[in-house]
Amino acid sequence: MIKIAVIPGDGIGKEVVAEGLKVLRKLEQLSNVKFDFQEYPFGAEHYLKTGETLPDWAIEEFRKFDAIYFGAIGDPRVKPGVLEHGILLKLRFSLDLYVNLRPVKLYHPKLTPLKEKEKIDMVFVRENTEGLYAGAGGFLRKGTPQEVAIQEMINTRYGVERTVRFAFEYAKKTGRKKVTLVDKANVLTYAHDLWQRVFAEVSEEYPEIETDHYYVDAMAMKMVRSPEIFEVVVTPNMFGDILTDLGAEIVGGLGLAASGNIHPRKVSMFEPVHGSAPDIAGKGIANPLAAILTASLMLEHLGLDKESKTVEKAVAKVIEENKVTPDLGGSLKTHEVGDAVVKVLEVL
Amino acid sequence: MIKIAVIPGDGIGKEVVAEGLKVLRKLEQLSNVKFDFQEYPFGAEHYLKTGETLPDWAIEEFRKFDAIYFGAIGDPRVKPGVLEHGILLKLRFSLDLYVNLRPVKLYHPKLTPLKEKEKIDMVFVRENTEGLYAGAGGFLRKGTPQEVAIQEMINTRYGVERTVRFAFEYAKKTGRKKVTLVDKANVLTYAHDLWQRVFAEVSEEYPEIETDHYYVDAMAMKMVRSPEIFEVVVTPNMFGDILTDLGAEIVGGLGLAASGNIHPRKVSMFEPVHGSAPDIAGKGIANPLAAILTASLMLEHLGLDKESKTVEKAVAKVIEENKVTPDLGGSLKTHEVGDAVVKVLEVL
Ligand SMILES: CC(C)[C@H](C(=O)O)[C@@H](O)C(=O)O
Ligand SMILES: CC(C)[C@H](C(=O)O)[C@@H](O)C(=O)O
Repeated sequence: MIKIAVIPGDGIGKEVVAEGLKVLRKLEQLSNVKFDFQEYPFGAEHYLKTGETLPDWAIEEFRKFDAIYFGAIGDPRVKPGVLEHGILLKLRFSLDLYVNLRPVKLYHPKLTPLKEKEKIDMVFVRENTEGLYAGAGGFLRKGTPQEVAIQEMINTRYGVERTVRFAFEYAKKTGRKKVTLVDKANVLTYAHDLWQRVFAEVSEEYPEIETDHYYVDAMAMKMVRSPEIFEVVVTPNMFGDILTDLGAEIVGGLGLAASGNIHPRKVSMFEPVHGSAPDIAGKGIANPLAAILTASLMLEHLGLDKESKTVEKAVAKVIEENKVTPDLGGSLKTHEVGDAVVKVLEVL
Repeated sequence: MIKIAVIPGDGIGKEVVAEGLKVLRKLEQLSNVKFDFQEYPFGAEHYLKTGETLPDWAIEEFRKFDAIYFGAIGDPRVKPGVLEHGILLKLRFSLDLYVNLRPVKLYHPKLTPLKEKEKIDMVFVRENTEGLYAGAGGFLRKGTPQEVAIQEMINTRYGVERTVRFAFEYAKKTGRKKVTLVDKANVLTYAHDLWQRVFAEVSEEYPEIETDHYYVDAMAMKMVRSPEIFEVVVTPNMFGDILTDLGAEIVGGLGLAASGNIHPRKVSMFEPVHGSAPDIAGKGIANPLAAILTASLMLEHLGLDKESKTVEKAVAKVIEENKVTPDLGGSLKTHEVGDAVVKVLEVL
């Protein structure tokens, strides 16, 4: 029995998680896997009612699960930052989910906004619990003409090393042959000097894996010009945030972007990269494929490689057959896409 | 007489600056403008011979010029960082060139790697002398498993305000109607909170100009999906570095990307965004259009709007006629492109 905590969250989060669960339930019928889903109400509604974002007892409870399946949070009635910090970043930091794993895969050439690209298949390993996200900093003379505002980018040998190591291990495990480091060591001569040294050291333990390096600005260009050359990319938190959104866009947008917030030996959290999208919430037109691919990523993490691949194949199939929502050029509703994936699963 | 200090620098820097100067000299013949060019040898060669990157006396001398025209620096024989810090960043910081102005303009639809894009025309106002580029930070327990490396993102009211103000003034001056702020205030709750407050305040002085806001990750996506919606974008140093390279790529690559390092009331420095490109240096195939468009940007800054526009038009024309280098799909040599621009100027 695989125990999964489910946090649908706000807006389209609820709608897409429902489809992800539909797919996981179908897998139960088709295989020996059994899930025990337990739902939690955290999100804007809960916050507005109770003043509570994510209580500590919930964090403790989550530790007993095998995984957390997360939808999206955010609501125009809540001040920006409150739910991001109180829920999303709190989960990442409290559970020490030090890797943000984000595949960038082109499922069909029609999906990319780039001319003449057929194959894009890379995975980002974004450091997820330090760097500019440490939350350290402060103001001097706030609100005056002499104000100084400081934000600290904090990296540790411990944090960088385990992330870089994860990247190489992931490459090995998934049969990828190259790991690319992206940093800005020519300017960030302290924090990213550490990244360069650690990367050089750790890479020596993996002689069979090729290494490569780009400065972040050059990387942003290269991802548009030649995304096909990348396999695994490891990068600090903030750059990972930017580059993975860019990555999502070049393979069809947030409607397809999955992510895992991972600690290899602890309960990990899986979420589509997109937000709660208040503008389209409740209309039944949200694309559930990111949430379904996120479920696939969760299965992979749980060691259910076969099931993970089956779900991914089913998604590729509905895309191929254009059984998709309007953002991908289709005309199906959210639940119809979920149904289509389930139907494909039945015959795969 | 307009006094211009010329630093061709390394690799293709020398080759493309020669073409820029060719164009400026042609302008002298065709108009009343007169230039006095004085060349300086700074770059890798000079550093390897003398150990000197950019001496303080040169900085003092530059202050007496009307502008600095810069090629590119960088050489495989010099440790990465040395010339960037010793020359490029030293120029920016010593001369207090607080704005990095980078147009992102699509001169012809064939140039963009994006499907179905016809019109892209925005200008980045990148803060250029603070943020993560402040150079502040340090190590604790360097080289041990307990190492901590810190890099400080330092922003000041003074530095942010003058940059934001420049963005609005530039919009006004050039007839643009919208200024977009790009930051990550939802995570960088100190440094970018300052940016948000200053932007809100300054924008009130420009009621005729629309404002807009994107988080940096969403911006990276939007620049691929809908770059046509942007006019002027103002953003902190590090994000500007990344987004302007992405911007260059979506309008044809570094071969066309111009930039100005500007202080509105002091000598300013103009450089193509590309580097010295050791791999193609000496082959005569470098694209000189970025350097020529950089000359156009310099002319605009010097108040020579008509001449600036004429050069830009000539560049658009040679692109239209495919009189370009291989990177843009043409077969011309560096000097032939320069010649083509000059020829167009004669009949414009
Ligand atoms: C919502 C925000 C705090 C978050 C981040 O910056 O990490 C998001 O952009 C993401 O990438 O998951
Ligand atoms: C060479 C490097 C220091 C520089 C920067 O980061 O600003 C370059 O990338 C640029 O954008 O001009």
